[in-house]
Amino acid sequence: MFKKILVANRGEIALRIIRTCKEMGIKTVAVYSTADKESLHVRFADEAVCIGPPSSTLSYLNIPNIISAAEITNADAIHPGYGFLSENAEFSRICHENGIKFIGATPAMINAMGDKSSAKSTMKKAGVPTIPGSEGLLKSVEEGIKLAHKIKYPVIIKATAGGGGRGMRIINNDDEFEKAWNSARTEAKAAFGDDGMYLEKFVEEPRHIEIQLVGDQFGKVCHLSERDCSIQRRHQKLIEETPSPFIDEKLREAMGNAAIAGASAISYEGVGTIEFLVDKHKNFYFMEMNTRIQVEHPITEEVINYDLIKEQIKVAAGVPISGKNYYPQMHAIECRINAEDPINGFRPAPGKITTLHIPGGHGVRVDTHVYAGYTIPPNYDSMIAKLIVTAQTREEAIVKMKRALSEFVVEGVKTTIPFHLKMMDDENFKTGNFTTKYLDTYDFSKLAE
Amino acid sequence: MFKKILVANRGEIALRIIRTCKEMGIKTVAVYSTADKESLHVRFADEAVCIGPPSSTLSYLNIPNIISAAEITNADAIHPGYGFLSENAEFSRICHENGIKFIGATPAMINAMGDKSSAKSTMKKAGVPTIPGSEGLLKSVEEGIKLAHKIKYPVIIKATAGGGGRGMRIINNDDEFEKAWNSARTEAKAAFGDDGMYLEKFVEEPRHIEIQLVGDQFGKVCHLSERDCSIQRRHQKLIEETPSPFIDEKLREAMGNAAIAGASAISYEGVGTIEFLVDKHKNFYFMEMNTRIQVEHPITEEVINYDLIKEQIKVAAGVPISGKNYYPQMHAIECRINAEDPINGFRPAPGKITTLHIPGGHGVRVDTHVYAGYTIPPNYDSMIAKLIVTAQTREEAIVKMKRALSEFVVEGVKTTIPFHLKMMDDENFKTGNFTTKYLDTYDFSKLAE
Repeated sequence: MFKKILVANRGEIALRIIRTCKEMGIKTVAVYSTADKESLHVRFADEAVCIGPPSSTLSYLNIPNIISAAEITNADAIHPGYGFLSENAEFSRICHENGIKFIGATPAMINAMGDKSSAKSTMKKAGVPTIPGSEGLLKSVEEGIKLAHKIKYPVIIKATAGGGGRGMRIINNDDEFEKAWNSARTEAKAAFGDDGMYLEKFVEEPRHIEIQLVGDQFGKVCHLSERDCSIQRRHQKLIEETPSPFIDEKLREAMGNAAIAGASAISYEGVGTIEFLVDKHKNFYFMEMNTRIQVEHPITEEVINYDLIKEQIKVAAGVPISGKNYYPQMHAIECRINAEDPINGFRPAPGKITTLHIPGGHGVRVDTHVYAGYTIPPNYDSMIAKLIVTAQTREEAIVKMKRALSEFVVEGVKTTIPFHLKMMDDENFKTGNFTTKYLDTYDFSKLAE
Repeated sequence: MFKKILVANRGEIALRIIRTCKEMGIKTVAVYSTADKESLHVRFADEAVCIGPPSSTLSYLNIPNIISAAEITNADAIHPGYGFLSENAEFSRICHENGIKFIGATPAMINAMGDKSSAKSTMKKAGVPTIPGSEGLLKSVEEGIKLAHKIKYPVIIKATAGGGGRGMRIINNDDEFEKAWNSARTEAKAAFGDDGMYLEKFVEEPRHIEIQLVGDQFGKVCHLSERDCSIQRRHQKLIEETPSPFIDEKLREAMGNAAIAGASAISYEGVGTIEFLVDKHKNFYFMEMNTRIQVEHPITEEVINYDLIKEQIKVAAGVPISGKNYYPQMHAIECRINAEDPINGFRPAPGKITTLHIPGGHGVRVDTHVYAGYTIPPNYDSMIAKLIVTAQTREEAIVKMKRALSEFVVEGVKTTIPFHLKMMDDENFKTGNFTTKYLDTYDFSKLAE
């Protein structure tokens, strides 16, 4: 087992990793930018090394400084957390070259999954469902209609140079095709100077459901069931839960097996997650693979009683896994408490926390690095806490979350707590009736009521 | 179900009860003394009523003021928590007479268990093992020796007027009897002016192990296994855990069944606990029954996934229980974090908390009413938080507790955290080798090292 792990991250995840290291009897080294010198990850690690000024590029992304910190402290492994260097193939390679174990994916795995189009073809080859569509650009209306018949309507055509919804049309039948094709191409030409179009199956009422995986160095991969992360705003997850209110045992098993097949195809080791889009007919499609621990991992830990960071460290050290899959025994929900103003477009609200009361009691877990008197620096992401509740049923978990949110007191900065409180009373959320588009049309001004 | 519950208590237990009420959709009324007006139980309850000045006698023990508060707020039930009026038969009766449900025992049950000698004879009749000994005073050495043969050595003789260890002798065989008898009587006469003596079986290497019970209004009683509370200082529990490292399945079942028999004998309803002394030979003896929720109830909740306060409220409202017993699925430990100075005789250390960081993460629960900036009043008990950890094994729970304690930051007042940290490294604690006497000879000065 490792003797000393350097944690190349900050905030709650740095603290989270230090916690598990302490429980495993492994020494820890914190690294920090000058903006973080009062942070708890610095206080709770056995050693701490300053690696640069506030700018991430010069500190938490500064590979030479982090490698030097590991060398001067004699750390034998580096845990990158999430974000920053956690999916940086170059960093993984340099760690390896310096004889430091990178607790994460190898450069080959990171590269295989980092490029979206090669990731998709790798998964397709492994038998993982991917969104069907044209190979490259579509040449004509006739070719499009033929393909649409094969993959079934509705389909979507998208400008290859596109973005922001422009040069994009949903097509429901043959009759709509030509008109949509012409108008999308005209729009794309005007907007991007390029009218190249491709076609894909349109995913109706998509949900973001991901499968947690663990693989060891001996080729075994198991899944730890799903997390439903459909409550997102501009692709930023806000609420996650497990089990998903949308999927049943059969779909869970099919998605779990597909995820295992995909990860096995790249001989994946470590913890990782395959994200899927699931449509209203319960078809599921590969979106991407994250070759690192995820923000929302605690909900999985709570429902299966499993320390994912511990497992991640163990497999990195060469410990084999049992290979059995894990299934939720309870229901867990996580709300991301961000220092953002949900009434004003979730504008970041850094500043000093003057009063803080963190909820507690049965079934309540809080992962946070903040305290009363702490100043949230403006340089990094705005998440200040993860509030996780666990109960026997989804209904009980929602009332518990509401209770916990109602006693979460943060004064001095704006937070997303009012948004989460409203969601726990939202009829659509309560009945599980939501997709990744739900917040696109949500009226955030009602939070001010 | 109740519509509104008045919580006749303060501190963490008031908050604990409010939490469950919120999750059950029941409104709450807090009561508070003027010393507690800034307390979180006042802030988090739906309503709050001041019931008097800081002195407990004039506020939290002031029955007329509490009944008035319930009447003006239209509360249909009162939860007394622990301590204060929780085992006051008079209060239970007055609540009943005023048409307010007392969430606790009836006057008859409280009286039956409140008087130690009648409680013992009730339990004995129900078949619960009690410490064998003389019926009333011992008349002679001959009678004593005869009884000692019957209940087996070692025995202890105690002055009926005694206390503080005086007029008390442990006797191991016939030869020692006469000398012990004479010297104990002389000592008792000198100290108390009364040389009346009684005799009991001497409990060797006693452990305090208690059984949690729940009974409903239909005569069903179940047990929720044991808690080991042997780590005590002057009869004050400091660390509790479940399961006990000392007992096996067979003993658990025997104690559980005895506890159910005892509670059934008084048609017990609500949550309650029977405390036993268990000797080194695994004989167990009834000590007392607590007809209320106990401080250490969370460890039971964590290992069996069960909200005891919720169950208590449900049975008070007439909901039947399933009647099945519950067994620990995990291992949980609670450390009582008191504002006391463990190096100086656990002297209470009230005052203002200037900095606070509460531990978090997987398997960590904290029940507390304090926050940074909170001033601990000198009027009440000194417990400021209960730190509960849960893990798969006792060994893992101990390392997790050590980790959690190491990141529990309380500045401004002294706390018992250094004591608990030392205990988590104590070889005797780690091997489960301790009795209720363990702290009697413990060298607390080593905490200063």
